[in-house]
Parts: sequence; C-alpha cells; structure tokens
Amino acid sequence: MNMYERIDLDVCRVDGTRIIDLKDFPTDLPDQHAKKVLKDSVAADSARIAELQETLHAQSSHALLLIFQAMDAAGKDSCIRHVLSGVNPQGCQVTSFKAPSAEELGHDFLWRHAKAVPARGMIGVHNRSHYEEVLVVKVHPAYLSAQRLPGIDPADLPGYFWEQRYASIRGFEAHLAGQGVTIMKFFLHMDKAAQKERFLERIEDPKKNWKFSPGDVTERGFWDDYQKAYAQAIGATAAPHAPWFIVPADDQWETRAIVGRLVREQLEALDLRTPELDARATEAIAVARMRLRKE
Amino acid sequence: MNMYERIDLDVCRVDGTRIIDLKDFPTDLPDQHAKKVLKDSVAADSARIAELQETLHAQSSHALLLIFQAMDAAGKDSCIRHVLSGVNPQGCQVTSFKAPSAEELGHDFLWRHAKAVPARGMIGVHNRSHYEEVLVVKVHPAYLSAQRLPGIDPADLPGYFWEQRYASIRGFEAHLAGQGVTIMKFFLHMDKAAQKERFLERIEDPKKNWKFSPGDVTERGFWDDYQKAYAQAIGATAAPHAPWFIVPADDQWETRAIVGRLVREQLEALDLRTPELDARATEAIAVARMRLRKE
Repeated sequence: MNMYERIDLDVCRVDGTRIIDLKDFPTDLPDQHAKKVLKDSVAADSARIAELQETLHAQSSHALLLIFQAMDAAGKDSCIRHVLSGVNPQGCQVTSFKAPSAEELGHDFLWRHAKAVPARGMIGVHNRSHYEEVLVVKVHPAYLSAQRLPGIDPADLPGYFWEQRYASIRGFEAHLAGQGVTIMKFFLHMDKAAQKERFLERIEDPKKNWKFSPGDVTERGFWDDYQKAYAQAIGATAAPHAPWFIVPADDQWETRAIVGRLVREQLEALDLRTPELDARATEAIAVARMRLRKE
Repeated sequence: MNMYERIDLDVCRVDGTRIIDLKDFPTDLPDQHAKKVLKDSVAADSARIAELQETLHAQSSHALLLIFQAMDAAGKDSCIRHVLSGVNPQGCQVTSFKAPSAEELGHDFLWRHAKAVPARGMIGVHNRSHYEEVLVVKVHPAYLSAQRLPGIDPADLPGYFWEQRYASIRGFEAHLAGQGVTIMKFFLHMDKAAQKERFLERIEDPKKNWKFSPGDVTERGFWDDYQKAYAQAIGATAAPHAPWFIVPADDQWETRAIVGRLVREQLEALDLRTPELDARATEAIAVARMRLRKE
C-alpha cells in the first residue's frame, strides 16, 4: 500500500448540517504523491466502477446521483471524464446545467433538475446542479428577477428566502434517498492562486482559448462571496443520505484519484447483486434450452 | 342571493395535518338546490376563471395547480370539463395520470408529477396525481414490486414506509408553494350507493359502455380500504399552502358548482394584476407609436 492509499478520505466528508468554514478544508493532500501513483489509482477505480455499474444496471434497484460543483477551472469536466469514461454510456447519463432557458425559468427551480434524476440502474452525473440556485443566484440576486417569483423583490429579499431554498433542496434530496437514489455531492475545492494559474494557461495556450471567457475574470472578483455561499450551502444541506465531499482541487490528479476512490467505495458499499432467478424462472430457462437444442 | 350561494364552503376545507374521518364530511349539500341555480353558478364562475386566467398569464408570476382525486365514476372528468372549458387552452394544461410506464416506474415516484407542474402563468390540472402512490399503491402494495425499491419487500413493508411517502409529498408541495405555485387538492367525495348507480348507468346505456370496465367492480370491492387510505393521505398532507377540499359528489352539478366557486375565489384572492410598465418601457412604447404613425 502506497502513501496515497493510506490517506483517510473521511476528512473531506461533511454529512450533517453544521456551520463550516472552507478554510478548515485542505485544497491539496498532505505530502506529495507521484503522478503515476495517482493515475494508476484512477485507472483501477475507473475500471472497477465500470464493472460495478454493470451490476447496478442488471439489478435496476439503486440509482447513483453524482453532483459536481466548483469554481471555474477547478477541473469538473476532466474529473468526470477520467473517472467515468470506462462506464457503458447506456448506464450513465451526464447532464450539464448551463444558464436556464426561458421555459426553465418559468418553472420552480428544482424542475429541470428533478427531470434529470437518474432512473434505477443508472449513474446520473449533474455537472453543476440545483445548487447553482443558492450559489450564483445568491451572489447575484438580480438573476432572480427573471424568475418572477410572486411577492419577491430581488433587491430586498425576505429573511427566510435562502433558508427556504435550502429546505426545498433538503426535502428533494431526502425524497430521492428514500426512493433508492444514492447521492454524492462533490465540491472541488481549489485555492484562489490555482485558479489564476489555470486562467493564465487558458489565455496563453491558443489550444485552450476556447475554454476561457473574459467574464470568468469578472466572476473571480466575487471569489469571497462564492466561498461564503458554498460554505453556507454545504453546511445547510449535508446529510448522511446526501453527503458533501470537499475535494482538494489544486492538483487535478489528486482530485480525480479522490473522486474515483469515493465513487468506487460507495458503489461497493451498496452490496450490488445480479438478480437471482426464482424456481419458476430457472425452470423456464431450462425449458428454453431444451427447445433450442431440439430445433 | 340564493340558498346555494349562502353555503359556507369552508366546511369542506382541510388545511392542517390532523386525523380525519371521511364520515364527518357530507357527500351532498344540505337542502336541495335547483339544477338551474347550480348550472348558472358554474357558468358564471367558469367565465370569471377564464378572465382571471388571462391576467395570471400576463403577469406570469403565479401558477395554479389543481389536483383531482376520487373513486371511479365520481365525476372528475366532467367536473374539469365544466369548470375549465372556458379557459384559453394555451394557459391551461391538463395531465391525466394513468398506470405508470416502465420508464416512469424506473424513477422516483414524484418524477412524472414534478415534470408536469405548471409553469408560472399557467393553470395545471392533474387528473389523478402523485397521491395515487399512497392510494391505489397502498391498497395494493404488490404494485410496489414493479418499482424495485432497494431493501423494500412489498409483502412486508417497514413501518415508516407510508409516512416517508407522505413526507416526500409534503416536502414537494411546500417547495412548490414557496416557488409561487398555488395548490388546491380536490377529493370528490361520493357515497358508495351513488357509485353503484353510476356503474349501472354505464353498463345499461350502450353510449356509456366505453366508460366502464369490469375491473371497476373489482376495485369497488376495496371501497373501505380506499376510504381509509384517502382519509390518511388527506390528513397527512393537508397544509395552509396545500389545502384539501372534500367536495360532496353525490350530485355532479353540486360538485361542479363547488369546485368552480373555490377555484374562482382562489384566483381572486391572488390579487392578480396585469404587469405595469416602468417609465422607460412607457417611453419606448410612445416612440414606437410615433414611428408607426410616420410610416
């Protein structure tokens, strides 16, 4: 067992409502870990996840919902790609939530997210999620005016407003958990300096220009507001049945290795089993075998 | 004011969680009311609802969700038709929930219902609803096996099972209410003898045969179980923001008149207003008028 494998990932788990401070959570792992060690770990976990997903699908009783949230350039997309690329796409559905459409704004804020909840037997990945409604919308309450909520003035929100949204989210996730949906919520936790480096890389490397928009730097100006909104949202919505994982994200291979291990361990904990046939079904199969042989 | 108009409909309202007994609620109104009085009342309310819906649509801030539940032949379909036929179909969407499809069974039980929640500015009618999950499914728990819930044996349900479903429903409706969706839930309350008469009518009148299925009589055999399941579901999910109305349904014109009046009164209570333009928009309109005139 190498040093990386010995790290206890429980340090990044938050599974009860409480006040948290993101400064208490590391943005990188203790000690240096060879890139090869991390890459091998991702590859092994990714292969095992693909295997486990086959059984998840055959059993069609559990669903797994993976939620990814992070500041820009924290590595959500590449983490999803590395951890889940081995999985049969038929059993895994990634939904990337961008700015809501007019139709989506016209509905309750959980509408588009509830529609995208994975069916039993599926892994659903939400790249950004309903949490944007208490993150970007909290940092920029003016966005609320497009939602036209009756009696709500975005410039003068009632005191209960955000608490009511957290309560909606808690209720939604508790419902899903009761219905066989296992929920894991990942916040890729990156230092502000790391974001600067990644933005500069995207600006200076013409092949990465497409990933960058000048607006990203404007949003970076709200860094502290976002960190506060994340801490509040995580603290208000973490639960044993819907835990948050505050994943170090200064090193992208560390992120991928941690997420891969957490997902693999969770799938293993589900004790998935290929459905067993009862006596009647077994007999029907025996009959079918005979008929085929006699043809 | 005629005798019907003087009746206080608050007697059929349940808006707080409590134990109820359906026997305490009448299946017809006190005194006889001339059919013409009831019909005129429906016509007047229906016309007013159509008017109010125009404003609801222009403002696009509130949504109205009307949920209809009842035993077979209680008159849900005709009640919806009479009360809402005047409304612009563009602003009113009726969803009839039949037996769930395989895709629907594969998702959490609120999935198909959450998708059908009306957008702001719309009236959404759910002809049957998520309540079937604690009504028909409660009377026939064997239906649960098709949902393949992990760790749940339909023949031996854990004690918390139904309470958890009620909690899911309460959370869902509280969320919607916080998002500008006004919810009204109607249970058309009919005496067992009235159902018998209506079934016989459907059997003996060839033009009504299509409405009848022999299975309806089998379900009638579970009458008492259904009444109990209704009482429990209503008592567990009534709330000021999601009230139940236990509407007398032995006389179909009474039912229509009562539902029409309740919906009209609720829309009036929303204090709907056509959105007012601000100074800039008013000026832009003045400029447009000038340009058109000069053409």
